[in-house]
Amino acid sequence: LDTHQGKLRVLWINPVGTGEFDDQIKNVLMSVKRHDVEVEVTHLPHGPPNLDYKSYEPLILVETLQIIRRAEKEGFDAVVIGCFDDPGLQEARELVNIPVVGPMEACLHIASTLGHKYSIIVNRREGQARLEDHIYTYGLEKKLASFRSINFMVSEMKSKLGELREAIVRESVNAVEEDRAEVVVLGCTVESGLMEELIDRLKVPVLDAVVVPFKYAEMLADMYRKVGLSHSKVYGYKSPPEGEILI
Amino acid sequence: LDTHQGKLRVLWINPVGTGEFDDQIKNVLMSVKRHDVEVEVTHLPHGPPNLDYKSYEPLILVETLQIIRRAEKEGFDAVVIGCFDDPGLQEARELVNIPVVGPMEACLHIASTLGHKYSIIVNRREGQARLEDHIYTYGLEKKLASFRSINFMVSEMKSKLGELREAIVRESVNAVEEDRAEVVVLGCTVESGLMEELIDRLKVPVLDAVVVPFKYAEMLADMYRKVGLSHSKVYGYKSPPEGEILI
Amino acid sequence: LDTHQGKLRVLWINPVGTGEFDDQIKNVLMSVKRHDVEVEVTHLPHGPPNLDYKSYEPLILVETLQIIRRAEKEGFDAVVIGCFDDPGLQEARELVNIPVVGPMEACLHIASTLGHKYSIIVNRREGQARLEDHIYTYGLEKKLASFRSINFMVSEMKSKLGELREAIVRESVNAVEEDRAEVVVLGCTVESGLMEELIDRLKVPVLDAVVVPFKYAEMLADMYRKVGLSHSKVYGYKSPPEGEILI
Amino acid sequence: LDTHQGKLRVLWINPVGTGEFDDQIKNVLMSVKRHDVEVEVTHLPHGPPNLDYKSYEPLILVETLQIIRRAEKEGFDAVVIGCFDDPGLQEARELVNIPVVGPMEACLHIASTLGHKYSIIVNRREGQARLEDHIYTYGLEKKLASFRSINFMVSEMKSKLGELREAIVRESVNAVEEDRAEVVVLGCTVESGLMEELIDRLKVPVLDAVVVPFKYAEMLADMYRKVGLSHSKVYGYKSPPEGEILI
Amino acid sequence: LDTHQGKLRVLWINPVGTGEFDDQIKNVLMSVKRHDVEVEVTHLPHGPPNLDYKSYEPLILVETLQIIRRAEKEGFDAVVIGCFDDPGLQEARELVNIPVVGPMEACLHIASTLGHKYSIIVNRREGQARLEDHIYTYGLEKKLASFRSINFMVSEMKSKLGELREAIVRESVNAVEEDRAEVVVLGCTVESGLMEELIDRLKVPVLDAVVVPFKYAEMLADMYRKVGLSHSKVYGYKSPPEGEILI
Amino acid sequence: LDTHQGKLRVLWINPVGTGEFDDQIKNVLMSVKRHDVEVEVTHLPHGPPNLDYKSYEPLILVETLQIIRRAEKEGFDAVVIGCFDDPGLQEARELVNIPVVGPMEACLHIASTLGHKYSIIVNRREGQARLEDHIYTYGLEKKLASFRSINFMVSEMKSKLGELREAIVRESVNAVEEDRAEVVVLGCTVESGLMEELIDRLKVPVLDAVVVPFKYAEMLADMYRKVGLSHSKVYGYKSPPEGEILI
Repeated sequence: LDTHQGKLRVLWINPVGTGEFDDQIKNVLMSVKRHDVEVEVTHLPHGPPNLDYKSYEPLILVETLQIIRRAEKEGFDAVVIGCFDDPGLQEARELVNIPVVGPMEACLHIASTLGHKYSIIVNRREGQARLEDHIYTYGLEKKLASFRSINFMVSEMKSKLGELREAIVRESVNAVEEDRAEVVVLGCTVESGLMEELIDRLKVPVLDAVVVPFKYAEMLADMYRKVGLSHSKVYGYKSPPEGEILI
Repeated sequence: LDTHQGKLRVLWINPVGTGEFDDQIKNVLMSVKRHDVEVEVTHLPHGPPNLDYKSYEPLILVETLQIIRRAEKEGFDAVVIGCFDDPGLQEARELVNIPVVGPMEACLHIASTLGHKYSIIVNRREGQARLEDHIYTYGLEKKLASFRSINFMVSEMKSKLGELREAIVRESVNAVEEDRAEVVVLGCTVESGLMEELIDRLKVPVLDAVVVPFKYAEMLADMYRKVGLSHSKVYGYKSPPEGEILI
Repeated sequence: LDTHQGKLRVLWINPVGTGEFDDQIKNVLMSVKRHDVEVEVTHLPHGPPNLDYKSYEPLILVETLQIIRRAEKEGFDAVVIGCFDDPGLQEARELVNIPVVGPMEACLHIASTLGHKYSIIVNRREGQARLEDHIYTYGLEKKLASFRSINFMVSEMKSKLGELREAIVRESVNAVEEDRAEVVVLGCTVESGLMEELIDRLKVPVLDAVVVPFKYAEMLADMYRKVGLSHSKVYGYKSPPEGEILI
Repeated sequence: LDTHQGKLRVLWINPVGTGEFDDQIKNVLMSVKRHDVEVEVTHLPHGPPNLDYKSYEPLILVETLQIIRRAEKEGFDAVVIGCFDDPGLQEARELVNIPVVGPMEACLHIASTLGHKYSIIVNRREGQARLEDHIYTYGLEKKLASFRSINFMVSEMKSKLGELREAIVRESVNAVEEDRAEVVVLGCTVESGLMEELIDRLKVPVLDAVVVPFKYAEMLADMYRKVGLSHSKVYGYKSPPEGEILI
Repeated sequence: LDTHQGKLRVLWINPVGTGEFDDQIKNVLMSVKRHDVEVEVTHLPHGPPNLDYKSYEPLILVETLQIIRRAEKEGFDAVVIGCFDDPGLQEARELVNIPVVGPMEACLHIASTLGHKYSIIVNRREGQARLEDHIYTYGLEKKLASFRSINFMVSEMKSKLGELREAIVRESVNAVEEDRAEVVVLGCTVESGLMEELIDRLKVPVLDAVVVPFKYAEMLADMYRKVGLSHSKVYGYKSPPEGEILI
Repeated sequence: LDTHQGKLRVLWINPVGTGEFDDQIKNVLMSVKRHDVEVEVTHLPHGPPNLDYKSYEPLILVETLQIIRRAEKEGFDAVVIGCFDDPGLQEARELVNIPVVGPMEACLHIASTLGHKYSIIVNRREGQARLEDHIYTYGLEKKLASFRSINFMVSEMKSKLGELREAIVRESVNAVEEDRAEVVVLGCTVESGLMEELIDRLKVPVLDAVVVPFKYAEMLADMYRKVGLSHSKVYGYKSPPEGEILI
């Protein structure tokens, strides 16, 4: 058996019951992926069309975890749960050995190495509390400059791309000038695709919630193959005995 | 309409797919409840027999939330999600207006008013990381003295009550003497029923994960009826528009 | 011996040398108390008419502690020290076994279970530092959204009730909209009596510094009677040997 | 007017109702004071013989504050409240303009500039919670390595000087070797007089709770005279209007 | 202009005045690098043979920064400063636009995504304070389980490889079992080369201070080329005007 | 041997390659020094004219440390590194036994004993990140109200003294009124000389970055002579064996 052969395989899951974002994400990933990486994008068989509310998350968790379990069996080297709220991230790590990446976690850690303070541009003010809870859990509150909201529904984003772009630029500038952020994190995977343009316009690092976690997953997949590094399986992420796994 | 009439009704949900804990819990609640409170204990139609693993939580969330939604419609004044991990607590508050109580959150806040440091007695060391994440989210890490583990599976607890009792006493004493805890929190609803005895033996406050959140729920139910106080509905717990609720 | 018989008795102490607030407080308490609770309101034989300055506190501590000691001997089940600065709270717990409640401590812990961030409406900006010190001691800084001041002297409050009400509403709205508070805590017992109205107008939880700590005291009194739960008597609140108590 | 003339005058108050520590303290102060400083040591007309319990503090506050008010009028340039618990420190600053020094606050800040972590040697474990609360208020918890207790009553200290010395050495060594402290703070003014010997034996900085705050008071007195620097009188320490001072 | 062509070039600098570690590091890097990455390893023309003391750092900073400036001009896509103390990391980012990676910063952020708590295995206890200061600056203290020391001088490491290996295993096991670490970080670049073996023996993630920062640098180099992402140039890392750069 | 004889000698080092600030500093120090203290002011033989950028620091460290080593040999009792960024402070303490004072560290600790919150007036916003990192290392973030920038280049300060004074007053007032600072710290040694005037105008404590650390150095020098107190030489500041000191 030669597990070190062949391309690294990374799976991106859009944890919603619609395929409407798959192509856009796939295009972004294809434009930034390594030559030695194969990328697949998928979504759930059922479930809500977005995760605008915290109470939508329970509706996508079981299927998301099933896909991740299956991905490991099919030989994927890493998985990304493609929503900035990182739904199911902890649960997934309990179930599999391959690296599982959450966009928020990956973005905030990388942002913390690129500047002294980061701001997060969120769709709606209502979503902030949920993200703030994650920041406490991830232990990254000290580097947070601010949250800034663009007040956009996910459903509006596609049809109002110009306005979306301007809102992101406006709030990013506010984050830098008023909140003293040195780094901007785009807090929604649907805001993806503007990273290069925004870095160029804003002259600060702008972290796209698709590009950055995907590149992080590539790196982890690579280390997993080469030296066996992945998340810990003692204590917090310890798997149930095989017979007691219920997903 | 006289909403101030009648007994306060509190629902205790055992968020597992078995009724085997219902009677024990009901007995404990009956022995401590207020005269003007009516208590009901229920469990889920499906789901795992316990929540020993984080990956079991997704399997109980949807039904738990459905029961809570229904409870509000049926006129309950407060609900307790009867597992120390507080599964679905945030999501439930997004969906209903009546107070929703999580045992861990209630116990830790009350413990913080009864002493300078509290320790949590957990079943197994593996469960600690999950609880620690909650502590960060609840903002109560400063008052934590330690976690202490009794190394007991939930399935063993009922049949080995004597050993369970001794293990709790032993670790509570260690928490007080070595970790300098002033308050002990029993981190599992199945450890319930020993509170009075333990307080008497240990001479420190011991918080039972059934009694304490239930009494807290009674108090919140009472204030909800009398002055309309419940959790906030702005920002973090804002409900979806009625038509967009998916549970 | 039947210690479980009879009504629960809760004593509210206005820790000032005037009885002018007693009736107002009594009325508020009577309107929210449990049927099985008996409430008494008292004040100090001497002392300043208010606690507007930190240097007034030493003038009320000894008598407040004496009253609390006597209350325990007279069979009260819980005591509330009726000033938002929680004067003498730690000292009282060193002296007695019955639950002693401080309005600030009780309000902030309950507020923390009702929303992600709370704001405190204070009378005057000068009082904030004192409260902030308490927040550090209670370990609740992570959930603080802001302090907001209404700039009212206690002596003016009674005669300018309409203006007081508007100032509270204005600063509460500011706390929610500008500081992103989800919960509002009224940081003065004299601001009491508006809770229901304010919750109704503001659509956020508003915590009255009389109602909330009193209901918390009822709950603790109840648990103290039923299962013996009160504050810890090891380490920080350990009493002096009986012969060495000097109050 | 020549306020810059004459010796700096520093008052050390033993905030207890006994003069039995005055000579020892005076001797220590005389041996370390500046040539241009005049030192006076005093105690209270009434009050308990020690401050072993938190509930003793209310009994000394009023007289302590009166002495400090009088000291300012008599031309003292600084005052030290001679107990490691810093009783009345905040209240005193509200009342006077001259620098008021608390041994704990001064020691911990200076300790923080002499090493990465400090430990505090306390008389009894029961006193730790009170000091920990101060540390939170002073904002110095990050540099705390540990508390270590020598288990000595103040009343025993004088008669068992040899054993006291050994207990301090033993716990200081433990603090350095087990808790990785770089600096040791002696958490009781009665432990005073051993500083030079202990530094020599232990080869780590040992902060005497009499010497260090006194030298700090000298420095503040000097700056107060020369450039008018003292504690702030806006917000937290703002004095009541002169006519409303009640001490 | 085709900046997307050609291999990514990453420079590893051993910031000491000796080339004795270059070959070992080069071998490690060659075994884990991507196919599309070219790696170069270099050291300083002058300077101390190791960085065992903080006072050695000033002796290597200027030359290290000169090499980094030159590397950017020569077209390198990223640089790693090859010492776990991250000397000159902040200064380097002020001077260049290409990503600059510090082993400690990269390891701790990645470790934080692989488990709830990490421990750092350091050479000697004396080095811990310096690293702890970095942890405060990086904002990662919440996830630190412990430091564990193997008590090895850098000069001894090469000749006692067997004992080194056993010491690392022993302290890693202690970190996991006693300090409850889920992830182990090897806090010295000279401890490199054992990662795969250690992960296999210990069954927890072990982060090699050469492999992990290098893979992180590859990822950043890749994103820098593809979308222009690098550290921020506003505020903290803003370069002096070109004419005022003094390195 | 009489080490207690003679005046205390304190050396102030302007860690830049120009003597242009020496006279101004000397004058300030002469006006505030103790009678029993002898002060010397010096600067570096080479190096940049200011430390406006972080990348200038490596250019002054070696010479600064050499001067401090020499000062100890020449019998100085304490040294101040005369730049608010405290360059080389940790390294210097590793090399010598005499107290070494950094203006920022000394000012912030003293400020923390004079009020509940302090603000720092910095020259330029770009310098803030560096200082913030120091605050994390010193452990004083809890008491920070804000940074305020006057937007002045060091080179402009001398020629625009009136404007400088007004800018400092303006930002100090903003710090007090908008950020609720109780204490103002002037975050640049070149802003020195205005302390008395500013305290008088602003009615809040204003800490001059020359006067305050110098008085702190006097105090430490005094205690070092009298009782041997200086920074710790275990762990973090442990010196290399004499033969291995490379400065």
